[in-house]
Amino acid sequence: MPRAARRPAPAAPAVLERARELTRPALAEAVGGLHPWIAEMAAYGLGWADPAGTPDPGGSEGKGVRQALAVLGAEAVGADARDAVPGAVAVELVHTFSLLHDDIMDADALRRQRPAVWKAYGTGPAVLAGDALHAQAVSVLAEAPGRHTGAAVRHLCGTLNALVSGQAEDLRFEQRPWHGPGAVAPEEYRAMAERKTGSLLGCALALGAVLGGAPERTVTALDRAGRHLGLAFQAVDDILGIWGDPAVTGKPVHADLRRSKKTYPVLVALAGGGETARALAPLLSSSRPVDAASAELVAALVEESGGRAATRDEARRHLDTARRALRDTPLAHPAARELDALFTYLLDRTW
Amino acid sequence: MPRAARRPAPAAPAVLERARELTRPALAEAVGGLHPWIAEMAAYGLGWADPAGTPDPGGSEGKGVRQALAVLGAEAVGADARDAVPGAVAVELVHTFSLLHDDIMDADALRRQRPAVWKAYGTGPAVLAGDALHAQAVSVLAEAPGRHTGAAVRHLCGTLNALVSGQAEDLRFEQRPWHGPGAVAPEEYRAMAERKTGSLLGCALALGAVLGGAPERTVTALDRAGRHLGLAFQAVDDILGIWGDPAVTGKPVHADLRRSKKTYPVLVALAGGGETARALAPLLSSSRPVDAASAELVAALVEESGGRAATRDEARRHLDTARRALRDTPLAHPAARELDALFTYLLDRTW
Repeated sequence: MPRAARRPAPAAPAVLERARELTRPALAEAVGGLHPWIAEMAAYGLGWADPAGTPDPGGSEGKGVRQALAVLGAEAVGADARDAVPGAVAVELVHTFSLLHDDIMDADALRRQRPAVWKAYGTGPAVLAGDALHAQAVSVLAEAPGRHTGAAVRHLCGTLNALVSGQAEDLRFEQRPWHGPGAVAPEEYRAMAERKTGSLLGCALALGAVLGGAPERTVTALDRAGRHLGLAFQAVDDILGIWGDPAVTGKPVHADLRRSKKTYPVLVALAGGGETARALAPLLSSSRPVDAASAELVAALVEESGGRAATRDEARRHLDTARRALRDTPLAHPAARELDALFTYLLDRTW
Repeated sequence: MPRAARRPAPAAPAVLERARELTRPALAEAVGGLHPWIAEMAAYGLGWADPAGTPDPGGSEGKGVRQALAVLGAEAVGADARDAVPGAVAVELVHTFSLLHDDIMDADALRRQRPAVWKAYGTGPAVLAGDALHAQAVSVLAEAPGRHTGAAVRHLCGTLNALVSGQAEDLRFEQRPWHGPGAVAPEEYRAMAERKTGSLLGCALALGAVLGGAPERTVTALDRAGRHLGLAFQAVDDILGIWGDPAVTGKPVHADLRRSKKTYPVLVALAGGGETARALAPLLSSSRPVDAASAELVAALVEESGGRAATRDEARRHLDTARRALRDTPLAHPAARELDALFTYLLDRTW
């Protein structure tokens, strides 16, 4: 991302590390409180251990974006970072639960370049481990001390409903035609992505603020910032899913096209209705599996018809909106600056 | 059950019907608030509709035991039945969620003599529908008005953790040997059944009492009564799983034996260590699938070694303990009498 490259944000990795250190003991306690077999699957899903239970210190763990947003959300409203910890644990557990179950639903065999939990342990056990993480997420938050627990739990519940509903839309899109009546409009895709990806990032920031005792107006603004961050993130993911370097993404070239996944670049290209869109439609609607050659052709046509550029614009627009939502809200420093740096850093991938 | 047969409890079906009528609008609203596709799967899972979405008024709906326990829990502590409704909705949604996911994990293709949700809609969609019901259950309770919401949510969270942990144990039992070191002891089976079956029945009663503002002592007593009811229920189910009449149970003859399911009658027979137990062990441990003839032989040996009688005793003992827990707690009438009648009625099956 050119702008990010010109303006490095050296603080962001340190912010992620600080949030991880602050959250880790409570997160480990929440996982340790599960049935031992489920705790083993959870540790694998979190990238803490390999399937034999051996600690895996390198590489497989996520960045912990959600816990960092929760911590910064509390600090940005002038509260102590420790107030955010139950919220940080809850959003990390919900994220892990949703990865476990989404990988089953999407038949994704790989996650962070390792076998997905359902591949490593079986579908039934992965369903169960996801359920346990889901339950534990709510439990940790419901048991949090302080006056704001009820509001925090209600916020998380709304997010869980949104996540599920977004995933339902995403699965239903697979059944719909690529073009003609019933085709998925780019705006429908955006609404799905806001629920499926944006809502949990918004929730992370909002939970930090709620647990920090912020007024509703501030909570809403932070939630909105996180949602737009999520939309920007999804747009970048969609670009990388087609044009990403396999060595970097860990996915095959043209991965989303090979899987006939309906993503923003293709939908917006088709919605444009130009000549290239008319050439795209029959290629996508073919009942044959998408081979390497036709995936390459589809990628070229989507790019030629402006699908890639429109998705870049989409990502930039949502990142701008997210940063503006932060700027327009009275927030405490240095958390506000760290949030801005983190937002930029997270989108700073080669796309 | 001889005692129940001698003392009919005509009130119980009316109690179930009253609780259903009271709970149904809120339950329908909770289901209606889900994504339409998920709502369709939920309506099927609840026995309200067939897979085409056509209302199914007959036969497939559960008895609604859990909602009735929640309603009677509130009335038994002198509160208005309406106070219990969010709790009643929550436990029915949790029950439905757990059936959907357990059927996936146990590869059970039939539920109430219809295809299980995962058979009718696919595994991925059934995982998602279960997640949605799980989230909505907590949400309905967290949004309930009144001073007792936080305590109710915490109670439900504890139950969800117990349910998952019980299901984990049940799945792990499958991997353990039938006899020798590492065999599942009857007490381990009982602890699993208390979590998997007892905890939600206890929670239903407890939630009614919590939402009705009962003191902790009363909540604990009602929770305990429900847990023992669940253990009695599970013992009866285990008897019916081996010796039940297929025309009544809707399952094949010797169903649990054909599936090599570790249940109380067999575990207690093996733990007895007598001559018949020694004859049982090699039959059960064979790597060959259990055919009709060997299932019949196993059933006879389990009965001969006292497994069936011990399980009957187990059921009676837990029902007695459950009824005593009710009697020993100061509860309001007529709810206390209706609870006693309902407990007896629920165990009044031919076993």
